[in-house]
Amino acid sequence: MKIGLIGLGIMGKPMAKNLLKAGYTLLVNNRSEAPMKELAACGATPATQAEIGEQCDVVLTMLPNSPQVKQVMLGEDGVAAHMRPGTTFIDMTSINPIASKEIAAALAEKGIEMLDAPVSGGEPKAIDGTLSFMVGGKQEVFDRFKPLLEAMGTSVVRCGDVGAGNTTKLANQIIVACNIQALAEALTLAQKAGVDPQLVFEAIRGGLAGSTVMNAKAPMMIAGDPKPGFKIDLHIKDLNNALDCAHTVGCPVPMTAEVQEVLQWLHNQGEGQHDHSCIAHYYEKLTGIEIGR
Amino acid sequence: MKIGLIGLGIMGKPMAKNLLKAGYTLLVNNRSEAPMKELAACGATPATQAEIGEQCDVVLTMLPNSPQVKQVMLGEDGVAAHMRPGTTFIDMTSINPIASKEIAAALAEKGIEMLDAPVSGGEPKAIDGTLSFMVGGKQEVFDRFKPLLEAMGTSVVRCGDVGAGNTTKLANQIIVACNIQALAEALTLAQKAGVDPQLVFEAIRGGLAGSTVMNAKAPMMIAGDPKPGFKIDLHIKDLNNALDCAHTVGCPVPMTAEVQEVLQWLHNQGEGQHDHSCIAHYYEKLTGIEIGR
Repeated sequence: MKIGLIGLGIMGKPMAKNLLKAGYTLLVNNRSEAPMKELAACGATPATQAEIGEQCDVVLTMLPNSPQVKQVMLGEDGVAAHMRPGTTFIDMTSINPIASKEIAAALAEKGIEMLDAPVSGGEPKAIDGTLSFMVGGKQEVFDRFKPLLEAMGTSVVRCGDVGAGNTTKLANQIIVACNIQALAEALTLAQKAGVDPQLVFEAIRGGLAGSTVMNAKAPMMIAGDPKPGFKIDLHIKDLNNALDCAHTVGCPVPMTAEVQEVLQWLHNQGEGQHDHSCIAHYYEKLTGIEIGR
Repeated sequence: MKIGLIGLGIMGKPMAKNLLKAGYTLLVNNRSEAPMKELAACGATPATQAEIGEQCDVVLTMLPNSPQVKQVMLGEDGVAAHMRPGTTFIDMTSINPIASKEIAAALAEKGIEMLDAPVSGGEPKAIDGTLSFMVGGKQEVFDRFKPLLEAMGTSVVRCGDVGAGNTTKLANQIIVACNIQALAEALTLAQKAGVDPQLVFEAIRGGLAGSTVMNAKAPMMIAGDPKPGFKIDLHIKDLNNALDCAHTVGCPVPMTAEVQEVLQWLHNQGEGQHDHSCIAHYYEKLTGIEIGR
């Protein structure tokens, strides 16, 4: 089985290396050349997008967002124009599930199957091959390519038909963003009311308020540590997709919209490259305090 | 040491029983007589509020909210008027921390110490004696009465000076309410986009979106189970205190305000006695779906 991977960024590059380690024959393509050379040294074959479409049994993409995936696959002289019927496209980009369905419909006309398979877990998990894949697509296609994804991740879960992977990812990102803002709001109130946020964290983390977000982000808020983790600009991208998807399917998402506005404001303050736990800075700016300090 | 407990409701009654089991001498008072008779049969002494004030070394209250605590303690012929200097008041009610500070200040003028010691954990944990106490007050007063509280709970944590217990409780309630609404919003979006919320839950619970709220409440939302748990009307009470406290100390709490409006709407729909996870009904009503069904 010959595999093509388009998109060798922060995530795509280590994922490609894990495919090579697992023994797959891999063609790679990227907008800039340096990562292709690096992958060639690891045993991959640099190729044009047309060559990947012509030669590969399965084409993977790991790109910034929906427009890039659509352009690469369905744009003029796109990859899909070069793929044979019976081949498969697996998009690992986090995009709008509505776009996933549109791309799948266009590919189906050419006899090409598709899975949407966005991941959670950042660069370290991409390097370790311990990503979590949320996958949408037909059961038999999922079953065929699950071992391929398992070369890059430890959790590979089918959530439904095409689009279900990205829908699940959006649900995940909504919950994470809201849980972070709730934590920041609560810790700010505590400190403004004269209570040490560290003691609040320790007192409540074992109860119903406890969460993975609290364990990961409360210490960062208290220490004032902006190092990502997961960047505000990427979370803005995901929540824009969530709002867009929600508007399309007719679901009110008032809390998501509220968090998105706060993240957008932080972006405008120059914090786009900071960790999303810097939502706390919104409250700190408004109240003139620094959480935990 | 003679102890008085005022307020033998759903929480106060089992807490009183645990004090008796631990061997304490207990005077009890309640607005209605039935719980006093029940406690008398367990070894407590029914008493008026004045008698409790006159005879007890430490007076505990477990009442509905701030106004009731103020009325019982500081109202005309209130308990405080009967207490001796050197005695202690421990309020286990969840109230506004600003009110806790006001009551403590009034008691300090009479030489009476105070702890605010609200709990988390509902009736089952009150019965089992496994409540979590969040305590505010002087360190030496806390140290003296920690064993007393440990007769009713397994976690007794000092969070700072008077008011810190209730401030911590408010932070807890803000996070719980917001996490529940975020979960409901995300699961509704998933279902409206055609994905089974149960699969979403299973796919994301192990990642950054995971929380105690998710593990406890996602199954209730999916099953449509309204049995409390923790009632919407009680959460409204707590968030009103949070908003009131926030306004007093000058902290913006937009997310808390948003959840409070949703809970208030649910109350007006007749859902006040349902579990707070019925926040999901707001989304279900707006979208015409039932999560998971």
